[in-house]
Amino acid sequence: MDKLPPEFALIARHFRPLAGAGADALRDDVALIRPPEGRELVLKIDALVGGVHFLPDDPPELISRKLLRVNLSDLAAKGAVPLGYLLSLSAPRGTPDSFFAAFAAGLAADQAEFGIALWGGDTTSTPGPLSLALTAIGHVAPGAAPRRSGARPGDLICVTGTIGDGALGLRAARGELADPTGYLRDRYRLPRPRLGLALAGLVSASMDVSDGLVQDLAHICRASGVAAEIGAARVPLSPQARTAGPEWLPLCLTGGDDYELLFAVPPETEAALQAEAARAGIELTRIGAFRAGPPSVTVRDAAGAPMRFSSEGWSHF
Amino acid sequence: MDKLPPEFALIARHFRPLAGAGADALRDDVALIRPPEGRELVLKIDALVGGVHFLPDDPPELISRKLLRVNLSDLAAKGAVPLGYLLSLSAPRGTPDSFFAAFAAGLAADQAEFGIALWGGDTTSTPGPLSLALTAIGHVAPGAAPRRSGARPGDLICVTGTIGDGALGLRAARGELADPTGYLRDRYRLPRPRLGLALAGLVSASMDVSDGLVQDLAHICRASGVAAEIGAARVPLSPQARTAGPEWLPLCLTGGDDYELLFAVPPETEAALQAEAARAGIELTRIGAFRAGPPSVTVRDAAGAPMRFSSEGWSHF
Repeated sequence: MDKLPPEFALIARHFRPLAGAGADALRDDVALIRPPEGRELVLKIDALVGGVHFLPDDPPELISRKLLRVNLSDLAAKGAVPLGYLLSLSAPRGTPDSFFAAFAAGLAADQAEFGIALWGGDTTSTPGPLSLALTAIGHVAPGAAPRRSGARPGDLICVTGTIGDGALGLRAARGELADPTGYLRDRYRLPRPRLGLALAGLVSASMDVSDGLVQDLAHICRASGVAAEIGAARVPLSPQARTAGPEWLPLCLTGGDDYELLFAVPPETEAALQAEAARAGIELTRIGAFRAGPPSVTVRDAAGAPMRFSSEGWSHF
Repeated sequence: MDKLPPEFALIARHFRPLAGAGADALRDDVALIRPPEGRELVLKIDALVGGVHFLPDDPPELISRKLLRVNLSDLAAKGAVPLGYLLSLSAPRGTPDSFFAAFAAGLAADQAEFGIALWGGDTTSTPGPLSLALTAIGHVAPGAAPRRSGARPGDLICVTGTIGDGALGLRAARGELADPTGYLRDRYRLPRPRLGLALAGLVSASMDVSDGLVQDLAHICRASGVAAEIGAARVPLSPQARTAGPEWLPLCLTGGDDYELLFAVPPETEAALQAEAARAGIELTRIGAFRAGPPSVTVRDAAGAPMRFSSEGWSHF
């Protein structure tokens, strides 16, 4: 009994160093966590599948960080403070030890950056591609988290950062688009969760943009029972996305993988939200407004004509 | 915009009815949960992969219940009260709607049985087999949950229920073993989490038996720094497992998929634990004891000789 079975030796070697208080060095089946007193928990699970959400040759340390960050992005949309996460990793048999080492190193880097810890996990084999799921848990003041369902007619529509880089980055990684500096590919591989914004009282609805701006905006419209209208020319693009040319604009608006935040903002709090974004070093751009009407999203081009899209966003089925 | 994208229509059709308070009818990205005051949270993530943890032709409503129950079993080992769960479901494109309907019906049945709710989830496509991950969350009194690491020399080793039925059931499902009533196959497909035992103060270490009794006992030995000795003849077998014959005994002791509980019990609390098990309608059997010494597991046959196993339990790598 000197040797651990290979699965557990792997966990001890690569993942035990990531374990936080309450995880008992991953020697137990469960984590035991005393939640912060008087706070509401914010919980999210998201999966990444090889060949669907990342490319087979993406560096392992970026795959693990993307997995963590797509979940932290959802917490960011609620103004939550992240605490910890649980990881499920299903890998093909024969996955080299160096893969797990790099995967864990990526998590270690992000744990330090975001001040969180691994609470538990599960490793299994799979006859399919690498399949990952991660549950992220954070906290907010009770009642402070904006939902998707609070947008009201007259609220402004604002987004953080720039839109479309992730979708263009996927095409760049596939060699379908020039990307001389690798900026777009890096935006696809490594989202930047917009944590640290104090949103309570400043926005009436919020979500992160992961499946395409138009489709995600439609989610807010449905949940809130309002219509949305945005100007395509107002949607903030990076210099690299502008360089790609106007033929890529529809993809920027519908492609997904942005992990920026999308807000409904009452006009009277827009200035305060702008100040909060500036304090956090995050660019915020007003791109349109909600109005009364059946749920719908209208995107107007520079001439004011409604644009049509072959797809509004990503659907897995 | 009358029609939801197919992925979200699927969620609304099958999973929205399962959503609990805090999940906002799955219209949001996150769940917002106010944890019970003054309690410790118990968190667990476990994955099931098609062809690894269940058979491709297993009924969908049993796959989903097994997924939930293997996680609840870990909560049961800590004496926790389950609250809710998050689900990650990666399915091959073209998975029929009837599969999702049956999968969700299984969850609905178990939610009613165990008094829990769905808090959130993620559905994606995969080019591989059905891949599932589930995070279960429950609560205990602070400090009340037994760890794996608390076993002491002199503590008794006890298990709930019967051991080996799950491993035999897998062989029965594959046609390698007669199973005229289907009892063994059903034990493989549908674990019974041993929830409802008040363990605080009665056991010094606890875990559920999922990867094989011998290997899981070894985990307690390593975490606690003790040696274990059990008698093979004392390990409780079902009548169906006894009928299979003694040549199957090694598999019963090492095969896994039991989802029974394994305890280290101080001799002075054995009677109280027996009474608690009787109150809950759960059979409890003493199978051996821990002693001082380097971590090791000795299984003695009826003649007192140590048994050897080709494998002590399941390892994914």
